[in-house]
Amino acid sequence: MNNYEKYKTHMRKIADVSYASGVLNWDQETYMPQGGAEIRAQQLSTLAGIVHELSSAGEFGTLLNTLSADTSLSEKEKRNIKQSLKNYNDSKKYTTAFVQEMSRSVSEAFQAWQQAKEKSDFSLFAPKLEKLVQLKREECKLLGYENHPYDALLNQYEPGAKTKDIEILFADVRSQLVDFVKQIAAAPQNTDAFMYRHYDKQKQWNFGIDLLRQMGYDFNHGRQDVSSHPFTTNFSSQDVRVTTRIAENNLSEMIWSCIHEGGHALYEQGLPISEYGLPSGEYISLGIHESQSRLWENNVGRSLAYWKGNITLLKKYFAEELKDITAEDFYKAMNLVKPSLIRTNADEVTYHFHIMIRFEIEKALIEGSIEVKDLPSFWNKKYKEYLGIEVPTDAQGVLQDIHWSHGSFGYFPTYSLGSFYAAQFFAKAQEQIPNLAGEIEKGNMALLLKWLRQQIHQYGKFYPADELCEKITGEKLSFGYFMDYVKNKYKYIYNL
Amino acid sequence: MNNYEKYKTHMRKIADVSYASGVLNWDQETYMPQGGAEIRAQQLSTLAGIVHELSSAGEFGTLLNTLSADTSLSEKEKRNIKQSLKNYNDSKKYTTAFVQEMSRSVSEAFQAWQQAKEKSDFSLFAPKLEKLVQLKREECKLLGYENHPYDALLNQYEPGAKTKDIEILFADVRSQLVDFVKQIAAAPQNTDAFMYRHYDKQKQWNFGIDLLRQMGYDFNHGRQDVSSHPFTTNFSSQDVRVTTRIAENNLSEMIWSCIHEGGHALYEQGLPISEYGLPSGEYISLGIHESQSRLWENNVGRSLAYWKGNITLLKKYFAEELKDITAEDFYKAMNLVKPSLIRTNADEVTYHFHIMIRFEIEKALIEGSIEVKDLPSFWNKKYKEYLGIEVPTDAQGVLQDIHWSHGSFGYFPTYSLGSFYAAQFFAKAQEQIPNLAGEIEKGNMALLLKWLRQQIHQYGKFYPADELCEKITGEKLSFGYFMDYVKNKYKYIYNL
Repeated sequence: MNNYEKYKTHMRKIADVSYASGVLNWDQETYMPQGGAEIRAQQLSTLAGIVHELSSAGEFGTLLNTLSADTSLSEKEKRNIKQSLKNYNDSKKYTTAFVQEMSRSVSEAFQAWQQAKEKSDFSLFAPKLEKLVQLKREECKLLGYENHPYDALLNQYEPGAKTKDIEILFADVRSQLVDFVKQIAAAPQNTDAFMYRHYDKQKQWNFGIDLLRQMGYDFNHGRQDVSSHPFTTNFSSQDVRVTTRIAENNLSEMIWSCIHEGGHALYEQGLPISEYGLPSGEYISLGIHESQSRLWENNVGRSLAYWKGNITLLKKYFAEELKDITAEDFYKAMNLVKPSLIRTNADEVTYHFHIMIRFEIEKALIEGSIEVKDLPSFWNKKYKEYLGIEVPTDAQGVLQDIHWSHGSFGYFPTYSLGSFYAAQFFAKAQEQIPNLAGEIEKGNMALLLKWLRQQIHQYGKFYPADELCEKITGEKLSFGYFMDYVKNKYKYIYNL
Repeated sequence: MNNYEKYKTHMRKIADVSYASGVLNWDQETYMPQGGAEIRAQQLSTLAGIVHELSSAGEFGTLLNTLSADTSLSEKEKRNIKQSLKNYNDSKKYTTAFVQEMSRSVSEAFQAWQQAKEKSDFSLFAPKLEKLVQLKREECKLLGYENHPYDALLNQYEPGAKTKDIEILFADVRSQLVDFVKQIAAAPQNTDAFMYRHYDKQKQWNFGIDLLRQMGYDFNHGRQDVSSHPFTTNFSSQDVRVTTRIAENNLSEMIWSCIHEGGHALYEQGLPISEYGLPSGEYISLGIHESQSRLWENNVGRSLAYWKGNITLLKKYFAEELKDITAEDFYKAMNLVKPSLIRTNADEVTYHFHIMIRFEIEKALIEGSIEVKDLPSFWNKKYKEYLGIEVPTDAQGVLQDIHWSHGSFGYFPTYSLGSFYAAQFFAKAQEQIPNLAGEIEKGNMALLLKWLRQQIHQYGKFYPADELCEKITGEKLSFGYFMDYVKNKYKYIYNL
């Protein structure tokens, strides 16, 4: 076996154990009985420890260093080695004990969060969250950073991103969106009252499955289940699973979680299986991942063309419930711009205020300028300030998101980046795919999926996010595309 | 950390990885999309390799040898160390490459078997099975044996069992059962025609859940799902899962798979969580495991008292379908003795012929006196000889069982041992629990479960099977108890 083959074998072993953890996590959030939680936490911690031992093994480091001097490698191989060496050097900064403690703390925090949210009692979550924040602060020190400790966390999700740049971007976003939201608020409002009629759960489920199939999601290599917080996970590109949640009195929840997670899943299913376990077989960054879910959820799934096509299918399930509703009504209803409490139900415009709030909180927590016990009041103050609304309960406030219970700090900003990338990519797709809106209206998503596969999915991590964006669109990420998109859309919807 | 603590920590690490494989296996047989199979096989192989590395690590051996000379340990600790040292010495006989090849071959064989069974085409399974048999023959050599190579495999499931002893036992079983089956065949026959009416799947499912709850199965530490072959699996005694299958035109399948798997699950849920990962927290042998499932399935679940109690509950779901049926009719119908094709649907008496056939085939395959290609004809000949029936298709013949596709050779005899242990244990329970039949009729299973927990479950592997049997019943395993039980039962049912 030559060195590169040895490298591949070792990387695949790491991937096998990581994906095994993925299965345990998926199970934990879908089917695991409550009483299995404690031991599951320990099992996940052990697997995390093994992944860490394998990822930071001295011999593996030697191999990577040898390979990074090997000029006979192809460009793809070189980029894989460069990536892996960076990950190796990062891994070395952690002790196995730290990794296991983090894994255990995350599992415990997740269980505590579930109960806290159910009872709307932040105090049930606070001690576990404090522990996690403490570990995260420690992690920033271990990893090192140039300017802000939060950079270290941000980089785990969005390699190369800087706290400073996000601050500048968000200041721009804020200044442009605040005015725009005011314009919309001043216009005559549309209604989405019919979305809250009674919609049978099984029928909703079936419709969601139809939408996933229409997008091109491959059920031979995936499945959908129910969980309290929808997510996508994969155990290779051959087994990519989504979850959804269904509310009987709110048709939107299921529809947009299906399309959103479906977008993530199409990316994972499109990654080359031949590159299993290697950077060239992995997604680039969470911002790019999110660009795929947002593109499908918003640019496609919240477009008039999409519903001109799909209203007939939807009415097959809900003829009576929707008999008075046209595609146009449906389109307007799903695109109400209105400040709201819950991030995942927010419209495309005010959504970014939810992210800015979380970004500010995370920065403050990590730099230590606020403490966990201050979170509920800080949260509620920010919601008043940014969105003008009162938060009635912690379940609808600071406890609404799963992320912190997963130890995911630095993750939220990638949601906004995703929307902005999506707008920029979609603008290019519209240029390059003849009559894209017409095809979408016909229910033909294949051209768009093919374009995404060719432009993005097939490359794995070969191109970093900024390089890929330039390659596809000819320029770096620019917020202007998103502003153009929303202005265009909402001018029509609100007769601005 | 003292040596015994180090030992516990290492054992628990091994258990964590083994149980992670358990989750991946459970997922594979319940929810995994077909297209995920290939990579899943590789992931399971990697985990098996890691378990093997940990189980056979030289340092661990040194620790075990040190501990086995430590006279300060408690009796329980000493027995744990003795067990673990034996397992360690066995592990050392395998190379990691062998373990991984076995794991991969098992996954491939399982996939092939599923397809072969669906298409009733043995040739689709044969090459994968050949590979497994070859590995199993090699395994016998690696492990070593005194008399028959099959001993080595038998011992993996039933420590201490000998091929020769099973041969003697089965000769006795055969001679006594052949006559008994003839007597029954000569008597007027009962009918079970109503079992094959149409029974709604969801209602069957709900009834099965009721039965599990009544037995004392804890759904906070378990769940039931559907799979093509019912099984029980556990990822600690805190998360013990069962699966079932439901046929719309055969009420029996679901009922007895629920009670059978429920019996297995009660054993696992009863093992002490404080002993997680240690021999003292594990089941004794498959024979003893099966004694628990058989006791519930047959001695309890196929008794008149059980159905005098439960017929009312069953009729709540199927009032119309069963309006002409009494508890007595139901009891007689579920206890027809009639040679049949499918082992899992066989009655309690002819069941053991199914096992004897498999035992003979496995011995012959392992010693090399037959080859895989001869299996279908050998199988069909034996069914004619032992049960007097023709096998119409391989799906109903040689392909019916999952076991060989799992690489489980030496497993089948433990089913018969289980029935015999069950009869012997149940006779003692009847002696020691006042009015047990009356309690069962009232739906009160708690006294029986408590008895099993105290007599068996709480000890884990502390007592070997033969020692435990003597401790509980005052004598070694004796086939006489089973014969008494069936004679008593069927004399009543068939008016012999």
